[in-house]
Amino acid sequence: MSEKVAIVGAGHSKFGTRRDVNIPELCWESMRPAFESANLEPKDIDFFVVGNAGIWSSEAAIPSLMAEYADLAPKGSMRVEAACASGSAAIKVGYSTIISGEADIVLALGIEKMQESPNPNVIELIGRFGSYFWEFENFGLTFPGYYAMYGTSYMFKYGAKEEDFALVAVKNHYYGAKNPLAQFQKEIDVETVMKSPYIAWPFKLFDCSPITDGSACVILASESKVKELGIDEKVWIISQGVGTGTANLSRREDFTTLPSARYAAEMAYKRAKIDLDNPVKYLDGANVHDCFTAPEIIAYEDLRFCKRGEGVEWIREQQTYIGGKIPVNIDGGLKAKGHPIGATGVSMAVEAYKQLLQKAERGRQADINKGVWLTHNVGGTGHFTYVTIYSLSKGVVI
Amino acid sequence: MSEKVAIVGAGHSKFGTRRDVNIPELCWESMRPAFESANLEPKDIDFFVVGNAGIWSSEAAIPSLMAEYADLAPKGSMRVEAACASGSAAIKVGYSTIISGEADIVLALGIEKMQESPNPNVIELIGRFGSYFWEFENFGLTFPGYYAMYGTSYMFKYGAKEEDFALVAVKNHYYGAKNPLAQFQKEIDVETVMKSPYIAWPFKLFDCSPITDGSACVILASESKVKELGIDEKVWIISQGVGTGTANLSRREDFTTLPSARYAAEMAYKRAKIDLDNPVKYLDGANVHDCFTAPEIIAYEDLRFCKRGEGVEWIREQQTYIGGKIPVNIDGGLKAKGHPIGATGVSMAVEAYKQLLQKAERGRQADINKGVWLTHNVGGTGHFTYVTIYSLSKGVVI
Repeated sequence: MSEKVAIVGAGHSKFGTRRDVNIPELCWESMRPAFESANLEPKDIDFFVVGNAGIWSSEAAIPSLMAEYADLAPKGSMRVEAACASGSAAIKVGYSTIISGEADIVLALGIEKMQESPNPNVIELIGRFGSYFWEFENFGLTFPGYYAMYGTSYMFKYGAKEEDFALVAVKNHYYGAKNPLAQFQKEIDVETVMKSPYIAWPFKLFDCSPITDGSACVILASESKVKELGIDEKVWIISQGVGTGTANLSRREDFTTLPSARYAAEMAYKRAKIDLDNPVKYLDGANVHDCFTAPEIIAYEDLRFCKRGEGVEWIREQQTYIGGKIPVNIDGGLKAKGHPIGATGVSMAVEAYKQLLQKAERGRQADINKGVWLTHNVGGTGHFTYVTIYSLSKGVVI
Repeated sequence: MSEKVAIVGAGHSKFGTRRDVNIPELCWESMRPAFESANLEPKDIDFFVVGNAGIWSSEAAIPSLMAEYADLAPKGSMRVEAACASGSAAIKVGYSTIISGEADIVLALGIEKMQESPNPNVIELIGRFGSYFWEFENFGLTFPGYYAMYGTSYMFKYGAKEEDFALVAVKNHYYGAKNPLAQFQKEIDVETVMKSPYIAWPFKLFDCSPITDGSACVILASESKVKELGIDEKVWIISQGVGTGTANLSRREDFTTLPSARYAAEMAYKRAKIDLDNPVKYLDGANVHDCFTAPEIIAYEDLRFCKRGEGVEWIREQQTYIGGKIPVNIDGGLKAKGHPIGATGVSMAVEAYKQLLQKAERGRQADINKGVWLTHNVGGTGHFTYVTIYSLSKGVVI
């Protein structure tokens, strides 16, 4: 790989129910601060890529919509989709496009507007990101149901309780309360979760990430462009690992781990020259895909932060709070910040940029010593996983 | 750019109304011959990318569906979409991923199954690949209507007649009749076109490409992998240009050219070191995006095969038949071969591979002297254009 790639600008919309804006306005809400922080203009962009699942919107052509709205035409573009990992897929395309030498500056936008879904409703549509004709149509599984099988399996194998899963929601709401762009900015306690109605046992309402409208944007640049423009504030993309899972969950053997996540993490670590036996010592923090509470705990293990079965102890011991072994989802995570599907992966990249440059809000800024951040973005029920490693330096050192 | 990228295997399904197969079976119909021609197996694939517009299907997760069906898991993947240029977007991702050094072997699959569209019907859905809320909803424009504005504008400006447009359909049906995988394998004459019912003046039924089910697949490999495996039959990707158009056609100034296509063509030519004043002298043939008849003529001009306004003379003079200045769409084009949206760009790449390696069927094999082929794949009404240049050698020489 000849070129290095840096995030040189980042922007993030308010996440939530956004009936106040249309799709181009919601996109621009994150694009404008991205341009401003990069000190660049639309004319500087060589290529742009949009992460958007989009199945709940009649608006099918967001790249050309934004080509017009943001004056990006005639520059090249595409839309990418990897279910809830669509945003990370957009970053992958930008990253590859720059390393390959095809472009120097790429804009990667993640966007989803889910609250205005037509029929069939959004809950049904999310359930299609798996095996549509077999497991979804025949057995009626929705997305909480898919992940609930992982939750129950983890409980059975490692003795976790519903109250343990609730601790993930408590942590993420604690940090979400400090993030002004989060959908939910209210702290909760274990009782809040335990008293909320069941969605799919063992998950209750407060174990689930919400339906969200939002956008996030990063501007990526080649090393030579970074030098040419003299850009000071930047975060390098060190490596990315990508994995795919089987469509049918019935084709999987173990419901306490996602093979696509383990594969993607190994690839990302190897390419970054991070020791697979102890990745935590290289990292200042991470964002993991907590679409439900239990998957955050499984993510600790798939990412090798701890051994299999130890994740539940970690959440009990508050090891993923600031001050613990590694802060995780200190922007509120999908759970409290919200989960606008196509935007989530880019939102994680924005968080890596903010944390490493120590621009996070009071009370949710991690200590930055190693200068390295990890994001773990899962599409469907482990149908896709993208793991990306960001660093203040051009390589990972300890 | 450090690595070169070659197509080392290619496969193509029968295009048409394919109620006899489901989506994975239709995908495998092109994947199997791609693997066979490359002498590779699914385990050899490092990454795969699916070009699929998909808005008419309930099946949302084709990459993970095929990860399972074709035993590609846990390798990484994504779906890409650029309306009718989705297949070329898939090739772009594969191309960039290999040049960037992230993968050595990438499978790019294009697939669309459009005949089983739920409500709203496929005609309405195609119309959404533009400005949905303004031009589609407010003015009721469908896809033939959008391109008809280009057809009428071209007629007014350059004196073309409906009978001239019909000549494109006659040529493409002539070659489609020689392509066993084409949806329509029957020759037609100008009278067939002129007597067919109007869809959107000046376009009649036989000016329009059909609704098609189909898949196409190429396997891409790095130069080092080509050497390592000793692959003889291969076609190099020399360059790619990509452009985006405004969502609203009302924001465009000239309805006899697509700015995204001119931009993409210039980029592709410059990167391939092809003289912009006379690209035809470098090329043995081309596939252009004849979703309707008039756009094929406009493509000759946007690609600088001839001057503005001369395209209509070219079709009258049969310059784009084998034996003319440059053979175009001698697989039948979208018009007769069919247009399964996500598959079309990959189908064009398969045709470049077949033509350059002189594997095309009797009566539709071009003379291969320069060893270079061009594909021009448009999404929407010039909302996206991808131009790709393929060569038997690692560069373009004359």
